[in-house]
Amino acid sequence: MNFKLILRITGTTLLVGAATVLLPLFVALLYRETPTPYLFTLAIIVPLGLIFRYLPRSNTSFFAREGFFTVALIWILFGLFGALPFWFSGYYNSFVDCVFESFSGFTTTGTTVLTAVEHLPRGILFWRSCTHWLGGMGVLILTTALLPSLGISSTYLIRAESPGPITSKLVPKASQSSKILYTIYLVLTLLEVFALRIVGMPWFDAVNHALSTAGTGGFSVRNCSIASYANPAIEWVIILFMLLFSINFSMYFLLLCGKVKRVLQSDELRFFLTVVLLATAAISVNIRTLTDSAGQAVRQAIFQVLSVMSTCGFASADFDLWPEFSRMLLIVLMLVGACAGSTGGGMKCARILLLLKSVRREIHSIIHPRAVSVVKLDGETVDERTISSTQNYFVTTIFFLFFAALIVCFDGFSFTTNLTAVIACVTNAGPGLDAVGPMCNFSAFSPVSKIVLSFCMIVGRLEVFPMLVLFSNNAWKKS
Amino acid sequence: MNFKLILRITGTTLLVGAATVLLPLFVALLYRETPTPYLFTLAIIVPLGLIFRYLPRSNTSFFAREGFFTVALIWILFGLFGALPFWFSGYYNSFVDCVFESFSGFTTTGTTVLTAVEHLPRGILFWRSCTHWLGGMGVLILTTALLPSLGISSTYLIRAESPGPITSKLVPKASQSSKILYTIYLVLTLLEVFALRIVGMPWFDAVNHALSTAGTGGFSVRNCSIASYANPAIEWVIILFMLLFSINFSMYFLLLCGKVKRVLQSDELRFFLTVVLLATAAISVNIRTLTDSAGQAVRQAIFQVLSVMSTCGFASADFDLWPEFSRMLLIVLMLVGACAGSTGGGMKCARILLLLKSVRREIHSIIHPRAVSVVKLDGETVDERTISSTQNYFVTTIFFLFFAALIVCFDGFSFTTNLTAVIACVTNAGPGLDAVGPMCNFSAFSPVSKIVLSFCMIVGRLEVFPMLVLFSNNAWKKS
Repeated sequence: MNFKLILRITGTTLLVGAATVLLPLFVALLYRETPTPYLFTLAIIVPLGLIFRYLPRSNTSFFAREGFFTVALIWILFGLFGALPFWFSGYYNSFVDCVFESFSGFTTTGTTVLTAVEHLPRGILFWRSCTHWLGGMGVLILTTALLPSLGISSTYLIRAESPGPITSKLVPKASQSSKILYTIYLVLTLLEVFALRIVGMPWFDAVNHALSTAGTGGFSVRNCSIASYANPAIEWVIILFMLLFSINFSMYFLLLCGKVKRVLQSDELRFFLTVVLLATAAISVNIRTLTDSAGQAVRQAIFQVLSVMSTCGFASADFDLWPEFSRMLLIVLMLVGACAGSTGGGMKCARILLLLKSVRREIHSIIHPRAVSVVKLDGETVDERTISSTQNYFVTTIFFLFFAALIVCFDGFSFTTNLTAVIACVTNAGPGLDAVGPMCNFSAFSPVSKIVLSFCMIVGRLEVFPMLVLFSNNAWKKS
Repeated sequence: MNFKLILRITGTTLLVGAATVLLPLFVALLYRETPTPYLFTLAIIVPLGLIFRYLPRSNTSFFAREGFFTVALIWILFGLFGALPFWFSGYYNSFVDCVFESFSGFTTTGTTVLTAVEHLPRGILFWRSCTHWLGGMGVLILTTALLPSLGISSTYLIRAESPGPITSKLVPKASQSSKILYTIYLVLTLLEVFALRIVGMPWFDAVNHALSTAGTGGFSVRNCSIASYANPAIEWVIILFMLLFSINFSMYFLLLCGKVKRVLQSDELRFFLTVVLLATAAISVNIRTLTDSAGQAVRQAIFQVLSVMSTCGFASADFDLWPEFSRMLLIVLMLVGACAGSTGGGMKCARILLLLKSVRREIHSIIHPRAVSVVKLDGETVDERTISSTQNYFVTTIFFLFFAALIVCFDGFSFTTNLTAVIACVTNAGPGLDAVGPMCNFSAFSPVSKIVLSFCMIVGRLEVFPMLVLFSNNAWKKS
């Protein structure tokens, strides 16, 4: 393991992170709030980043394991560094709460330990939204977009941070891909800001909710999330953008290149849209009697379906009060998640599709033992390594869910609360059921549980393996 | 698919099943109860079996797919046929209830739709226990043991019915293996009958509980299960036999052959015993304050740990009242289950071990991309086909759990009830949490849910794939 190089990249990324703190600092100054939380943060991060950055460099050997290790390390550091503005603001009860909030932000989980948010300074609210936006597309992808010459091939970094079973390259050069991704991301975010403003959301709220939707985070600047506005037009705009940010960004690149046919042939996209439609229909019927009109039922259903599948976690209604079928279905959809290569969380539709296809092949091979069959996605053969890796991902995630739930149990909450809290954190969705329902928050958990749940979020965001590499004995050995 | 041959084997197996109905008939006559439920059953089953048995035979081509198909078909028929004595007894509310009870019996789930059992005729109570005993080791393994010349190589039948990722052959001849298995099974059962009698259980109760423990079923002849006796000695005897029936039966064969070293080296056995010990320790500490003494805490803990891991489902205490950690842990242990090749259910320790080893290999291959590594069990390399099949089994089971839970949801029970009811049925454990806790029963579910849950039990007992083959379009096509 090339530790020196890993620390250099970490240093560079921390400096990029420090630069992003200038944004809430600017907002604070604009609204005449105290700039000290951000200045103190910079005073800690910048020297640390510089020390790491200017360590003597060794060789440039950088492979998959270094990629996974770096990503895991940097995300933990970002979780800690992101907590500093919250801590220095004085609005949080403990440093553990700040860390939880920061992990929840960067991992785009969007669950909060605050019982109310409307009294927070605008700078802090904005920093919360910024962490979503940065975490959504990835802090390392941002770094490689801004600073292409890290002295390494950034492919391994990007692969370790990108969500999904297969990392699609838009263009041969990795840093060029990062630039394209962030450009699309920025443009879509700006479109949402304007769309929200047009339907009547104040500018500040529009910017924050757009950043939050883009990262599929879920932090809101209002106590009752999107339900506060009681404005169907706002809900429809957010529904549209939750959908857009759940789709693999390479689809937009293909559209820009005029390859419409390839977009329409995407197995994952069709699977995702089919699930959205079917789930919306099922929930609409199931909650019809609780709503004033069929239209309202459909709107609430599609909002919540997209909110949990994109793992945005916004709430336009308290789905914890819905019938059991809808509640269970939303938890299942949370686990399914968005498309690979989007900013959304969960297991990703591509993985679920691959797993289903692999099971179908298993049955086929029982019936036709001599037939050799391959698993195909978008018409192309998926190599066995990817299938096995996807299966291992699934197994590890399920095992990890139960393991984490066992620790959280000690707080004495209900079975439903414990299990769905862990699912909501690992999938980066945010709200669960019962005591962690969409109108509740995670403030009542013990510090130990909050640390475990923060860990769940990062395991979920980085899709398990980087964290396993970080905690593997083998990785720390000298090669 | 060789349907004619499949029907012939089905006919033979139904006749073997008919023979087993003579046992409760004998008990009914012994206790001067009406023999009509059993005679009516025989009047239906025997002609049906004979018709199938003496169908014109075609060729003898019989492979894996025929094996899976036959096993799935026969288990569904047995579930229906086993319901007949219950139905003719007049003690059940509906035929769906009888089918549920019969599936619960044969699949060794042991959950009941009756709110009380002590008023039932002894013949019916004995038939309930018999279904456990037959289902535990398998009705087809019994048939191949009794009638070795089915005109086919019975390997594929045995493989499809035996639990676990790898079917170990005791001796080269499959029907000979079946005989050895059933002999060990019978001897251990008789030992338990005498042990229970010695510690004070009445003869009738001892026989029934021994049959129930042996099949790792869980039906009791008392309303409050083992807790009714309030006798620690009885609990310890049952603890011992739940342990013995959770272990791969090939271990006993190895012991009889004097190969003690190979038993001690079994990875699965060591894994199983380690989990039992650790879980018992953890739960003992967790429930200590609820019990009178440390000894009682340990006894209750080990009883419940073995009850859910063997998936026997007996209750010596109401674990639904235990702290959240113990409740959650018991559900996790239920999913883990017993050893492969035992009569126990769940996913099986061997599978969990294989999955964990496969994940470890994944991490290793990230760190050392060029290294070629294999997964080993008991010192032997496990082929990739088995690993992939195990992963597919895991994925399908988890998907199926959520799918079934979604249907059961419509009854309006709690999230915890729905999820743990499905888990308890798919793992063949029996009791879940909340409304399906160990002191409750499944009587309140709707007929639709009861059918879905019956289906869950059979999917769990046959470990998913036979049922998938049965419902696959491909399998029904002419080859």
